[in-house]
Amino acid sequence: MQAGARGEIDAGRALTRVTAFSDGVFAIAITLLVLNLDVPRLSAAEQHRLAHDLIDQWPDYLAWALSFVIIARFWVVHDRLFARMARLDERAMVANFAYLAAVVLIPFASEVLGEYPDRVAAVVTYALVVGGATLLAWLLIHHALAGGLIREADRPETRVYGDRAALMRPALFALSIPVAFVSTGVAQMLWVATFLVGRRRR
Amino acid sequence: MQAGARGEIDAGRALTRVTAFSDGVFAIAITLLVLNLDVPRLSAAEQHRLAHDLIDQWPDYLAWALSFVIIARFWVVHDRLFARMARLDERAMVANFAYLAAVVLIPFASEVLGEYPDRVAAVVTYALVVGGATLLAWLLIHHALAGGLIREADRPETRVYGDRAALMRPALFALSIPVAFVSTGVAQMLWVATFLVGRRRR
Amino acid sequence: MQAGARGEIDAGRALTRVTAFSDGVFAIAITLLVLNLDVPRLSAAEQHRLAHDLIDQWPDYLAWALSFVIIARFWVVHDRLFARMARLDERAMVANFAYLAAVVLIPFASEVLGEYPDRVAAVVTYALVVGGATLLAWLLIHHALAGGLIREADRPETRVYGDRAALMRPALFALSIPVAFVSTGVAQMLWVATFLVGRRRR
Amino acid sequence: MQAGARGEIDAGRALTRVTAFSDGVFAIAITLLVLNLDVPRLSAAEQHRLAHDLIDQWPDYLAWALSFVIIARFWVVHDRLFARMARLDERAMVANFAYLAAVVLIPFASEVLGEYPDRVAAVVTYALVVGGATLLAWLLIHHALAGGLIREADRPETRVYGDRAALMRPALFALSIPVAFVSTGVAQMLWVATFLVGRRRR
Repeated sequence: MQAGARGEIDAGRALTRVTAFSDGVFAIAITLLVLNLDVPRLSAAEQHRLAHDLIDQWPDYLAWALSFVIIARFWVVHDRLFARMARLDERAMVANFAYLAAVVLIPFASEVLGEYPDRVAAVVTYALVVGGATLLAWLLIHHALAGGLIREADRPETRVYGDRAALMRPALFALSIPVAFVSTGVAQMLWVATFLVGRRRR
Repeated sequence: MQAGARGEIDAGRALTRVTAFSDGVFAIAITLLVLNLDVPRLSAAEQHRLAHDLIDQWPDYLAWALSFVIIARFWVVHDRLFARMARLDERAMVANFAYLAAVVLIPFASEVLGEYPDRVAAVVTYALVVGGATLLAWLLIHHALAGGLIREADRPETRVYGDRAALMRPALFALSIPVAFVSTGVAQMLWVATFLVGRRRR
Repeated sequence: MQAGARGEIDAGRALTRVTAFSDGVFAIAITLLVLNLDVPRLSAAEQHRLAHDLIDQWPDYLAWALSFVIIARFWVVHDRLFARMARLDERAMVANFAYLAAVVLIPFASEVLGEYPDRVAAVVTYALVVGGATLLAWLLIHHALAGGLIREADRPETRVYGDRAALMRPALFALSIPVAFVSTGVAQMLWVATFLVGRRRR
Repeated sequence: MQAGARGEIDAGRALTRVTAFSDGVFAIAITLLVLNLDVPRLSAAEQHRLAHDLIDQWPDYLAWALSFVIIARFWVVHDRLFARMARLDERAMVANFAYLAAVVLIPFASEVLGEYPDRVAAVVTYALVVGGATLLAWLLIHHALAGGLIREADRPETRVYGDRAALMRPALFALSIPVAFVSTGVAQMLWVATFLVGRRRR
């Protein structure tokens, strides 16, 4: 696929820079999540209830923790994928950017969820953004496998993230959308289930 | 141009650090765009219209998506340019900083556009900032070609971004400014046209 | 532990990327602290007291300075740790992410402390977040030592940060929590004492 | 100064990571400046004066541009310094962190200046922060020269930034503080003069 040593050096360079750029985006997105935690604004007379107000924000902390873990996992999978890639093509570049676009939306979806933890609209927003990211990650990995971008020796391990069974995760997020209209709690439990799915297979 | 191996190592080092710094700026700017998406602040009695209010912000999402794609494209072109450079001179440094200055303004211009999508002033602001970035990118590439900073073998491919025909893109943004006074919609269609311009030539 | 040259290259690559990602998170968290410094919003008639209002925010500046120094020290210790690691295992990855999660919460805890410097709830929040980060750093270092992840020659120097005596620092933060209910000032003096602890031993 | 190859590798590694961390901080600080540009919040009836309100913010744009150029110059000098260093010592580490602390305050000082461009308190704040950064940069460079951290061949060029004459720049910022009480305009002209100082000597 590559024409000689020059091509390989170029491929390595392109991979390095796309990896570094993606790492930057992941690191910024995971750190920006903290901006969703608001400091209560209390007058002097109200300050006695600072502890109460801080504790009262527990849905914000929960949304922050969920989103932190989700972005961290996305980064780990992305890290492994790019470690196993021999080269990039234009489609993989586009898929990677589309995936990053969904990742940077997570702080927004997380803020909506933290503010309105039991509103259907908030749960659907979160499922759309995170589920969308999950699907785009799958598309990126699937294309990398189909397009021969993965090093031969690393194909079996990579396949676990890019085969049909791996579609289970975006499917659970998709399923959580209609479920949210019945029960936002059950919908959120489906998200947690996605963690278990991955764990069992590896 | 360079005096021996030491010079080449220095040139390589300078390129690497300017590239890393620029990558950081691009990654931060593209991620900060998400801060333009506001979470509606609703009292308990108003929360039933969360879905409505979230959907009502569609111009914000559109401005976000447009700016994400624009910064991503800027990064790709910048990546290719710096991959093909053999060295930097002071002018290229200044041009690169001027270009980055325009890039970091995009989240601001994007927020203005998202808030007031059909105000002439917002459309002109966006055209000035993004069009300005396009022009400064052209100046950087043009100077890199004229100043012999591009590796001989890579000059033909680089020329597509730095010749007169490549001025079409900043020209379309410039044109969109007077057009915005007649129709903000047509002005925005001119921006989308800039994507097609590049695609046809390559 | 590693199977040949390929394993070592992979270990080096994984270390490099986790290091780069962690560095990014530290750099962003330390820079985001500045967003806690509010610019007073004054009407034209009130502007004569800008100096007064700026000086009046001294608890914010103090919280900023304390948090800046704390994150800087965390980074230095993290830097030394990763320089001495030969490889990573999954537990170390998880411990590193948990540690980073506590680090990115520092800007939030710092804002709470700056706004309400003598409220027990604010002092406890800060002690929980920063003390938690201190404990998670210790766990990471302790595991790296116990799991044989540190290069043989570097074990003695690393032990200073991962042995029982090094638990003094999280212990002081834990102690500051009950103390805060008696005196927030004494609690904060315990934090400053943690700086001296480290210094004496090295 | 260094004991063999291992020491040199360690020195190189430490330099690389401190450089990368500092670069991250510079890149984030220069990009965060954009958050100081506020989008006017106008009701439907007021939107006709969007252009007017955007133009009315010209002191914000000016403060942004000044701070962008100042951080960019800081980065360039920092880049050259670290390219010429052979190793770091603990003092240089501390000086570098103190310098970065001043750099990350620039977005705050810049916002104060943009909001209250002709208030003495705002001009003094800016002079303290940016002048402080200038002084700390000088201390870092001066120490690097005195402590033998700079490669022999690079000492002459580095001295221009770390000798007594280079103190002219922090001196001008210091001078601008009393001057601001007489005229904020003249004080700001002194800042611009610092750009000329550097240019003439090189």
